[in-house]
Formats: sequence, C-alpha cells, structure tokens
Amino acid sequence: MTRHYNFCAGPAALPVAVLERARNELVDYQGRGLSVMEMSHRSDEFVAIAEQAEADFRALLNVPEHYRVLFLQGGASMQFAMLPMNLLGQGGSGNFIQTGIWGKKALSEARRLGYACHVAGSSEPNGHTAVPGLDTLDISRDAAYLHYTSNETIGGLEFDYVPHVSRPDGKQVPLVCDMSSNILSKPMRVEDFGVIYAGAQKNIGPAGLTLVMVRDDLLGRAQSDIPSLFDYQQLAEAGSMVNTPPTYAWYLAGLVFQWLRDDIGGLEAMDAINQRKADKLYGAIDRSDFYSNPIAKANRSRMNVPFVLADAALDKVFLEEADQAGLLNLKGHRSVGGMRASLYNAVPEEAVDALVAFMADFEQRRG
Amino acid sequence: MTRHYNFCAGPAALPVAVLERARNELVDYQGRGLSVMEMSHRSDEFVAIAEQAEADFRALLNVPEHYRVLFLQGGASMQFAMLPMNLLGQGGSGNFIQTGIWGKKALSEARRLGYACHVAGSSEPNGHTAVPGLDTLDISRDAAYLHYTSNETIGGLEFDYVPHVSRPDGKQVPLVCDMSSNILSKPMRVEDFGVIYAGAQKNIGPAGLTLVMVRDDLLGRAQSDIPSLFDYQQLAEAGSMVNTPPTYAWYLAGLVFQWLRDDIGGLEAMDAINQRKADKLYGAIDRSDFYSNPIAKANRSRMNVPFVLADAALDKVFLEEADQAGLLNLKGHRSVGGMRASLYNAVPEEAVDALVAFMADFEQRRG
Repeated sequence: MTRHYNFCAGPAALPVAVLERARNELVDYQGRGLSVMEMSHRSDEFVAIAEQAEADFRALLNVPEHYRVLFLQGGASMQFAMLPMNLLGQGGSGNFIQTGIWGKKALSEARRLGYACHVAGSSEPNGHTAVPGLDTLDISRDAAYLHYTSNETIGGLEFDYVPHVSRPDGKQVPLVCDMSSNILSKPMRVEDFGVIYAGAQKNIGPAGLTLVMVRDDLLGRAQSDIPSLFDYQQLAEAGSMVNTPPTYAWYLAGLVFQWLRDDIGGLEAMDAINQRKADKLYGAIDRSDFYSNPIAKANRSRMNVPFVLADAALDKVFLEEADQAGLLNLKGHRSVGGMRASLYNAVPEEAVDALVAFMADFEQRRG
Repeated sequence: MTRHYNFCAGPAALPVAVLERARNELVDYQGRGLSVMEMSHRSDEFVAIAEQAEADFRALLNVPEHYRVLFLQGGASMQFAMLPMNLLGQGGSGNFIQTGIWGKKALSEARRLGYACHVAGSSEPNGHTAVPGLDTLDISRDAAYLHYTSNETIGGLEFDYVPHVSRPDGKQVPLVCDMSSNILSKPMRVEDFGVIYAGAQKNIGPAGLTLVMVRDDLLGRAQSDIPSLFDYQQLAEAGSMVNTPPTYAWYLAGLVFQWLRDDIGGLEAMDAINQRKADKLYGAIDRSDFYSNPIAKANRSRMNVPFVLADAALDKVFLEEADQAGLLNLKGHRSVGGMRASLYNAVPEEAVDALVAFMADFEQRRG
C-alpha cells in the first residue's frame, strides 16, 4: 500500500488513522455483524454513533446548548438557498460581504430566490487580495443577517477578524458564516454567530454531509411554503432525521472528531500545527522570487495557499513532476490557474516539508 | 468477523462482495495513494469512477439515450419537492395515486409548496391492501404528470402494472415513479416513464445518494426562482456536479452495479432470485395460521414483507430471539408495528431460508 500527500481543495485528505479504522470496521462494525452503512438510521447502534459524533463535535468547538447542530445533505451550496428561506421568511434583507467566488454564489442564490439583498462590503476593488475592514462595512437598515465566507477556498483569502456589526438603529445583526474550508482548523467562539455552516469535504469528513449550527432564536422563522427538508426548525426537531440522513458520512465525521480530540489533542493543538504548516509554505514562497502569492499577509489563508510560478509556461511540468513525487492535486482552481496547496487538518506537516523541498529543488533546476 | 442476516428496510444490506472490495480499496484506491473519499470530484480518477457507474447503471436497465441519469443528494423526500418545482413550473397539476405513506408524503409536499394537486386514485378504501385498478383512475384535465410509488416500503404494497394514462383530451400523461424500494429488483422499461427516482439506501448503495432519471423533454420546465440545486436542467448540464456530489456513495453504487452485472448476471437473474425469496417467505406465511400478511396476492411486495403474529404479545420475544439467531432488523415500521422482512437484492436466499426455519421453529415453540 502506498499513501501519497494529497493537497486537494476538496474532497480533501482524511487522516490515515480515520481511514484505517473505517477500513477495519467496514464489513463488520464492532462485532455487530453488519456495516455501519447497513444500519437503520433509527437503530440503537446508529443513533449511538450519531449522538457520539455530535457530542464530540460540540466538545471540540464548545458549542453552547442554545445552538442546534444539524447533519444535512446538499453541500454548502444548498445552504445558499436554505439560509434566506429560513432567515428572511419574516422580511428584512440579507447583507453580504463579498470576498471571492463562494461569497458571490451565496449572494446570487439569495437573489435568484427573490430575496432582498445588500452588499455590505467587498474586496473586489483590490482584486480579492485583502478583506474589507470592519469600519468600511455598510449595513442596511433592514439587515436580518450579515453573511460572509470566513475562508475563500479558491482565492485563498481568510478573515482575520469577526465582523460584529449593528444596524443603523443600533440593533446587533446575526452573523451567518460559511466556514466550509476552515472550520475545526482552530478554536473559535460559536456564540459570535447566528448560523455557521460547512460542507464536510474539507475538515470534517467525506463529501455528501453538511454541518449547520443554528442559534435557537433563529429557528421557526421560515416561510411555511418552503421545502420541508429546508426548514431548520423541522430538521432540528427531528434530530436531522426528517428523512434518512447520510449515515456513513456522519459516522466518518465522528471518527474525524475523535481523531482531532485523541490523536491531535484538540483544536488548540490543531491550530498550532496548522500555523506551522502555513508558515513553512508561505515562508518558502516569500523567500523565493520564483513563487508568489498575491494575498495581503494578514488575510492569507492557512488552509488554501494559491501560488504562481514566475513563468506560467512551467505550470504543466511543475504539476507533472510534483505528481510523480507523490505530491497530488496541486493544480489551481480552473477559474484562476496556477497552483494551490490545501493544507487542511488531515494534511500532515511532513507533507508540507516535502512540498517545500520539492519547490526548492524545482526552482533550482527550472527557475 | 461475523456477518448476520440483515432484513432492514433501509439503510439496508449491501452485498458482502461490495463491502469487501470497498474495504480493500478504502485506504489506497488501486495504488493511486489515496482513498476514493479523498479524490477531487473533478479529477480524472473520480470522473472515470462516476462515468463507469453511470454506464453500468444504464446497461443494467437499458436506459435510453434520451434520459439523463442524475446522482443527487437529499433522498427521495427531496424529490417530493423537486418534482413539482421542475414539472409544474409552466402550469398544470400533479396527479397522484395514493397507496401508502410514501405516496402520501409526495402529495403533501407538492401541496405544501402551493402546487395544484389531484388524487387520481387511492387504495385507502381497502386499507392499502390492494392497488387501485387502472380503469378506476381519474386523471384531471390539466394533468402534467401522474405520480405513484411502485412499491410502498412500509405497507408492503407493490404495483403489478404500469399505470399508462391519458388526460380526458387524449394526451398521454408522463408517469413519475418513486422506485426507491424496488428499483433494480427486476428488468423494466424505462421508456414507460417521464421521471424515475430512488433513494439509494435499498437496492443501490448507502444512504446519502439519490438517483433520478429524467426524460429529456421534461428538462427546462422549472421556474427560474427555484433553488439552483433543484433544477434538473442545470444538474443534467453539469453532469450532477453543480457542486460537490456525494463521491463515496457514488463509487459504492458503482460497485453494486458491477456486482449485479458480474456476480448476479444482470436483472433477469436478480428477478428470478427475488421471486424465489418472496415465494419462500410468503409461502411460509400462508401455510401457517400463526403468521399473516394482509396484502392482496397480486400486490404483495417482493421487497418488503410485513407480517403479524397471531398473538401480538409475542412480538417482543420474536424479535429478541430472531436477533439472537442473527436475523436482524425484523421489527415493523413504528407506524404499523408487527414485523417486516425486507428482501432487497443484497439479502441472500440463505437469509430467507434461515428466517423461514426460525419462523417455523418459533411457531412450534410459542404458537
């Protein structure tokens, strides 16, 4: 068996320990005579797995009791529709900070559905290389929430602050945050937010699962004529089991949470490791004239590091040689080109060391 | 390792050969150095897996070229909302045959969303023990489609005919069928239908994947203000990858399709096995005065066999003893009680033999 280093932006690397445990339990889960995939979602065995996963997730992030944690399907993109349908059912407008492609999609979807939307701030003037400052945000009088993307996976732009804002009348505005690509990468204060959501396929587990945290007071605001499976209140009341949930993905997410707690030592330890990984790669980029990253230092993503070569004609050979060296999926997003190294939790520090060494060698030979 | 016989209604048993192959490839897929779970959905490796799965599915069911096959999330219940949003966007009404709980949910959801709905037929008068005859169906003048549930998983009621219908003006009405619990159990004519859909967690693969087949002429009829991820046309154009699909579930479904083709020999062979399994179990029930099943013989489900004991006070001990004998998940749905044995494709004939033997022994000891 060979394992390579996988820098994919998502679906992304999973911890080897998690994959090995899943493998060992795949055909017969703990002597029960069946696979987790074959369990009724309402069986005692699966309910125990599901509840343990939620408890471990809550413990990792210190999720307060007045937040529901939902295990859903559809990806973060489904939330782009579910959010306004749940939060604007009684009027008001969605306010949006635009820092890249994902934030733009969240805004477009709310507009497509006919909801009132307002752009509260944007990094478009600087080419999405620095997030807008808190004091530049323009919140509308009818703001029902402020949506932002804490880490733009494609652009590699990460917020270095939480944009606490109020409406002109002084009323605090609930924050809604797409944390798909940096959730669980560091400790955070859940109570700063009204809704947090994240597709699983970066730091949580496999694709096909989406985690949503909703503060209790934001439940029950949906219009009555939205799809039942979109209604946070119904989903919360049914423990995310209005219908059959993605059981195996839920189980795998639970294994990832256990790995974070037991093998890594929690989110503070994970934070330190992620910081070292990012420092090593950005350090290598900054020390070189051959590699470059355009993002303002304070907003450089620790999870997704896009970089370009001084000579774009070398992109193809860079990627081919990296692949042969066991450094997989370094191609930049089709919309931006160049390279991108995603350094999610499951990407070990040795992977970054190997990448940095490869980059130095490549520059020496081809630069 | 122990493997028991699993009669769960869903998530249901998977073929052991599929689970073993998935286990062997879980940490390192065919020497690529990563798990299928860790592959970008846009990578050459995963696209090959996805395309092969679709090709194998099409071959098994002889899906004509003018049908799209979509690999989606959300379960059949999400289709209850997506269907009217896609098919009634230009007016008309949904017509529904009601033969049990799932058909009722499909109707309720369409009504919740505000669409015009018409009940074309119902087995409610006979307590959902026989499907309504074709000549009793009442199709509305504005029928845009006729929806029915080919097999009611909970009631154990299966259609023995395809309800080809026309509107009073003679125009043929597209059939929309929820085949969640009997798809792939036998050969069928896809071209009889406008839309076929099925949650994966019975005969296709793990929970978290839903297959939808849509005839080309039914694409592009959606309203423009429905969620993007609900629009069949957009999903079809993007090859089910508008956003990240449930990649691992898709891969596992592909393994199930290969198993059906290579290990079973295709759907005619599967059909014969399923018929033998059902004959054995219904035969045992009918030969006994202790066990009974209320469904009209022509409409008895081959996939889900509900039965009750002459003395309901023995239910608990029946289930406990069955469990100890390695016969799992025989409890009836919470809405109906009693027992239910689901005999999906992956439940081997030996499992039915073991169940029938256990039932005879139990009757002798306790009946």
